[in-house]
Amino acid sequence: MIIVMKPEATQEQVTMVTNKLTKVGLKVHLSEGASRTIIGVIGDKRFIAQMPIEAMDGVEKMVSVTVDYKLVSREFKREDTIVDVDGIQIGGKNLVVMAGPCAVESLEQLLLSADIVKNAGAQFLRGGAYKPRTSPYAFQGLEEKGLEMMAEAREKTGLKIVTEVVDVESVPVVCAYADMLQIGSRNMQNFQLLKTVGKTNKPVLLKRGLSATINEWLNAAEYIMSEGNYNVVLCERGIRTYEEYTRNTLDLSAVAAVKNISHLPIIVDPSHGTGRWELVRPMARAGIAAGADGLMIEVHPNPAEALSDGKQSLTPENFELMMKEIVSIAHVMGKIVP
Amino acid sequence: MIIVMKPEATQEQVTMVTNKLTKVGLKVHLSEGASRTIIGVIGDKRFIAQMPIEAMDGVEKMVSVTVDYKLVSREFKREDTIVDVDGIQIGGKNLVVMAGPCAVESLEQLLLSADIVKNAGAQFLRGGAYKPRTSPYAFQGLEEKGLEMMAEAREKTGLKIVTEVVDVESVPVVCAYADMLQIGSRNMQNFQLLKTVGKTNKPVLLKRGLSATINEWLNAAEYIMSEGNYNVVLCERGIRTYEEYTRNTLDLSAVAAVKNISHLPIIVDPSHGTGRWELVRPMARAGIAAGADGLMIEVHPNPAEALSDGKQSLTPENFELMMKEIVSIAHVMGKIVP
Amino acid sequence: MIIVMKPEATQEQVTMVTNKLTKVGLKVHLSEGASRTIIGVIGDKRFIAQMPIEAMDGVEKMVSVTVDYKLVSREFKREDTIVDVDGIQIGGKNLVVMAGPCAVESLEQLLLSADIVKNAGAQFLRGGAYKPRTSPYAFQGLEEKGLEMMAEAREKTGLKIVTEVVDVESVPVVCAYADMLQIGSRNMQNFQLLKTVGKTNKPVLLKRGLSATINEWLNAAEYIMSEGNYNVVLCERGIRTYEEYTRNTLDLSAVAAVKNISHLPIIVDPSHGTGRWELVRPMARAGIAAGADGLMIEVHPNPAEALSDGKQSLTPENFELMMKEIVSIAHVMGKIVP
Amino acid sequence: MIIVMKPEATQEQVTMVTNKLTKVGLKVHLSEGASRTIIGVIGDKRFIAQMPIEAMDGVEKMVSVTVDYKLVSREFKREDTIVDVDGIQIGGKNLVVMAGPCAVESLEQLLLSADIVKNAGAQFLRGGAYKPRTSPYAFQGLEEKGLEMMAEAREKTGLKIVTEVVDVESVPVVCAYADMLQIGSRNMQNFQLLKTVGKTNKPVLLKRGLSATINEWLNAAEYIMSEGNYNVVLCERGIRTYEEYTRNTLDLSAVAAVKNISHLPIIVDPSHGTGRWELVRPMARAGIAAGADGLMIEVHPNPAEALSDGKQSLTPENFELMMKEIVSIAHVMGKIVP
Repeated sequence: MIIVMKPEATQEQVTMVTNKLTKVGLKVHLSEGASRTIIGVIGDKRFIAQMPIEAMDGVEKMVSVTVDYKLVSREFKREDTIVDVDGIQIGGKNLVVMAGPCAVESLEQLLLSADIVKNAGAQFLRGGAYKPRTSPYAFQGLEEKGLEMMAEAREKTGLKIVTEVVDVESVPVVCAYADMLQIGSRNMQNFQLLKTVGKTNKPVLLKRGLSATINEWLNAAEYIMSEGNYNVVLCERGIRTYEEYTRNTLDLSAVAAVKNISHLPIIVDPSHGTGRWELVRPMARAGIAAGADGLMIEVHPNPAEALSDGKQSLTPENFELMMKEIVSIAHVMGKIVP
Repeated sequence: MIIVMKPEATQEQVTMVTNKLTKVGLKVHLSEGASRTIIGVIGDKRFIAQMPIEAMDGVEKMVSVTVDYKLVSREFKREDTIVDVDGIQIGGKNLVVMAGPCAVESLEQLLLSADIVKNAGAQFLRGGAYKPRTSPYAFQGLEEKGLEMMAEAREKTGLKIVTEVVDVESVPVVCAYADMLQIGSRNMQNFQLLKTVGKTNKPVLLKRGLSATINEWLNAAEYIMSEGNYNVVLCERGIRTYEEYTRNTLDLSAVAAVKNISHLPIIVDPSHGTGRWELVRPMARAGIAAGADGLMIEVHPNPAEALSDGKQSLTPENFELMMKEIVSIAHVMGKIVP
Repeated sequence: MIIVMKPEATQEQVTMVTNKLTKVGLKVHLSEGASRTIIGVIGDKRFIAQMPIEAMDGVEKMVSVTVDYKLVSREFKREDTIVDVDGIQIGGKNLVVMAGPCAVESLEQLLLSADIVKNAGAQFLRGGAYKPRTSPYAFQGLEEKGLEMMAEAREKTGLKIVTEVVDVESVPVVCAYADMLQIGSRNMQNFQLLKTVGKTNKPVLLKRGLSATINEWLNAAEYIMSEGNYNVVLCERGIRTYEEYTRNTLDLSAVAAVKNISHLPIIVDPSHGTGRWELVRPMARAGIAAGADGLMIEVHPNPAEALSDGKQSLTPENFELMMKEIVSIAHVMGKIVP
Repeated sequence: MIIVMKPEATQEQVTMVTNKLTKVGLKVHLSEGASRTIIGVIGDKRFIAQMPIEAMDGVEKMVSVTVDYKLVSREFKREDTIVDVDGIQIGGKNLVVMAGPCAVESLEQLLLSADIVKNAGAQFLRGGAYKPRTSPYAFQGLEEKGLEMMAEAREKTGLKIVTEVVDVESVPVVCAYADMLQIGSRNMQNFQLLKTVGKTNKPVLLKRGLSATINEWLNAAEYIMSEGNYNVVLCERGIRTYEEYTRNTLDLSAVAAVKNISHLPIIVDPSHGTGRWELVRPMARAGIAAGADGLMIEVHPNPAEALSDGKQSLTPENFELMMKEIVSIAHVMGKIVP
């Protein structure tokens, strides 16, 4: 059972609720986020069911525990969530495209990429400044210098900036530059990181873990939301299977499933999802047809020279082609690229 | 290395080729199909490379061994294959829909299903007369009685009939009734069955094995084609992964991959692929957007009473809705539902 | 619900039972094996529960349906099954070793292999005469000629012969030569083949399918037993996972699980299970320690020249080493190599 | 290419090496650990191959990059590593057992558990004070209070303490109490955490990620070692597969594989690996027979009342039985429980 307090609830009101619960022997888990407080209640449901909690001052809602996540579920909120990223809306009628290089390599490469994706119709520039890499000896990203370059690209193009945050320590510096924080696959169950971004007001793009079930993924979103940050967008990016032809197996049924279970927007990353540039366009189309609210695409001015993931990056020409196809499919789905 | 003989090649011409090969110590594997003979050559490639085999009478083509399959590859044949099933073409501009109940249960149920799928625009009636079941105590199908019912449904509606053949023994009886033979997932590597249907002239729908790689799947098609039957259509139906929300994980990237590697048509089965009727429509749309040439869909007049797979069957109403959406996506893809 | 008839039950007694069931509207599925008849009953359990079936002449046992398999379960039979293969017992205190080359290549190679495995202490000679191969152009085995060679090796060494049967057609010829029939991974759900070997009196070694669950595997054994052949030995040989270092992932917990759920003997094949000869010895030891009743091992006089699976075959020296280690572990487990 | 500096190398010597490298255009990645500095070199290998780096002062070794990990490999170090945890050696002839409850629940429960595992012959007490949990509403551990209880148990029993560290922030506090730090599955690729524990002097137990390849796992160990902490012990705890009978699939071939590839000690956790207490004993035996250097086992005074993972915890009686069996298998393997 969880109790969602109103954004304007006072500390006093929160205390009154928790006192009422602890007095009858229930345990309480308090999540104080930037915008609201959530009270998780552990203990016998029958006790709390008999208490008039929802009538108390400051309480917005009480949700019972049928699945282990609550705030992410359609049961908790029927209508689709639309996440606003500094004026660009993700979800609803909009189809957003986030594109750019895997890693920020240099200012020149980044500005060139930004122009390409902006001209083709994308709304977000993606690019890694901090890169989680399997080997400690692989290129680890330009770090804050990379963030500065992204900010410069934003200034020149008006694109929103989405970039990965790889640990708790760098949350403040990434927040200072980015419009949207990305949690990568490897960190989907880095619970401390989830809680930390949950305490910020920045929209979060939460990638599915490499072998996460849909249930675990939604619980990871719940970690963020339980800290008060409701601006979460999910991103399907392929799961690990026995198939070796593709880097991962892009699980588009997860898009349709999430749309049924949850109110959160969801986008698709066919670049990591397939690991092969020649499969990106068909899978981008398929993702939209499955009901996704957007795409994350790797584009590189010159994939053959990319420091990272060149094999799965689209050339500018192929990205343009993809955008045209996407617009047509979006139209059938009743969506528009803003 | 394999040598493809012309359809009109004589037995004498075949013998002349094989003699030439065995004389220099190469081993020969002869596949005599209904329409042509294929000669597989085992041994040192350098020998054969120096021999003027392609100049010999009756020889159509010689293909070298870079991947282990040959006849299925784009390398062997650049242009898309179009499989003609008694007047209905699969592949090319056409988008075909095969629909019907999982199992044939009664004449009444089948005729009702046939009307529903015919009226909504499908070209094929699907339905299992022989059912491979995990448990020996589960309903195993009506067998030949079921085939008779399918033939009756064809007569009444003009729909083509596609149904599964589960063993070598029943190939003749299924051929006597069906327009197209289906090889199910569990039999994808039943090599004797593959060879047997390869010796018939019936078009074959080859489902991907539960945990088959794309490479193994194409090799299974190669088994059929190496016997001379080139009328093979592939069907992606989901692979086994750790995810438990869906019955299988529908691997649509396999559709795009197959389109690159092979010239064979490929369709998608989102009913088995997801195991949940509410995911069938979005995944049907996504399949077409990924480039599939058609769909196989379970439809039941009354899913709640189905003897098998009711959970994943569409109601007539949902099937109609799906057909409308599919037509729109097909249009974007430059295809038409015939 | 299933009804197991006594071996000596007459046709008349069987008919009396089925009549009684069909009269009250229950459906009946009859399996007439070489040694006994099994009656599967489909329909409302409450009907049959009230009928005094077990009191009828010729009825041995009635088993209720809590899991979908019955005859394989410990619930059906508490004590461990011991399968007798022409005087060699599999199960109980015995630890059997089946060893030999992957494929029978020549009489010389086979006799040499037979001497090696016999001298090191094995009881069975394994070797493939019919080889199911992914590609139609790969070596498909010596077929009946290979069986003849195996029979000759048996005569010279006294080893029992176990070899794979790949389709229904070749069951009679394999039965004519082999002491034990092997069903390979790809055929674990070739239900027609399972039923056919179920109608013979030959002991069957049933390998786990490449991505079969334990439940599906036990159901496959049930197919064989439901035809009356109770002499089934299971063989864990690795499952398909994302890990690429090993050819498959040998699932030894399945050995322990099967020992809990079922009364059937189970052996382990670390050669296919790992695909690397250097892992065969440790995994053979581990298999015995997990509780397995035996091993199936690929041994080749000269692995570097094997036509098939050389990478996973032990040299004679390593096989001898393995046998010594196995004897020590078996001793701890209270078992002996006969 | 990486350069390992001697423990006693001065800052000046490090700088002389890096200067030499950067002057010819190579990039340098410095890892300054508690005990030594490692220099990763990125760039054209041919340059560095011609430079007499190994002759420079303070340089211990230069290792070339054939696989992406180096310090963990047998190529780097032939002989088995023995990790000393405050007097208890892991690796070599020793077989260590770490046992205790999944989560520290109370002082009483912990002291009782400690007595049980001590009396049965374990050397380490395991227990979670910080618990990474899928749901934000699940019990998250007693945190520092739990660590205090563990320290008290150590004082009373002499057992060494191993406990999980879940984020960078809590590394200092866990170091203050624990004898050995555990990195859990979900954090196997939390690179910031790996680097942080790599900068401490505490021995680290690195669990395999839920769907990590052996290669990724060894690279994770490399992250720790590249910071200078060479006291790493690996722990196989099961991987995620399609099989649902067990919680995970314990991959014992990984034990044998790691022994070939790496010099690091490796232990096995059959409790998480199977998720079923009745499979723990057989898989513990199998793990030792496969060559593992120890075990991690969940034991609970009263599994039925455990707050976490009761289903997979051994009762005191079963743990004692297991210890006896383990001693016998260890004997065969030439090992002893110290």
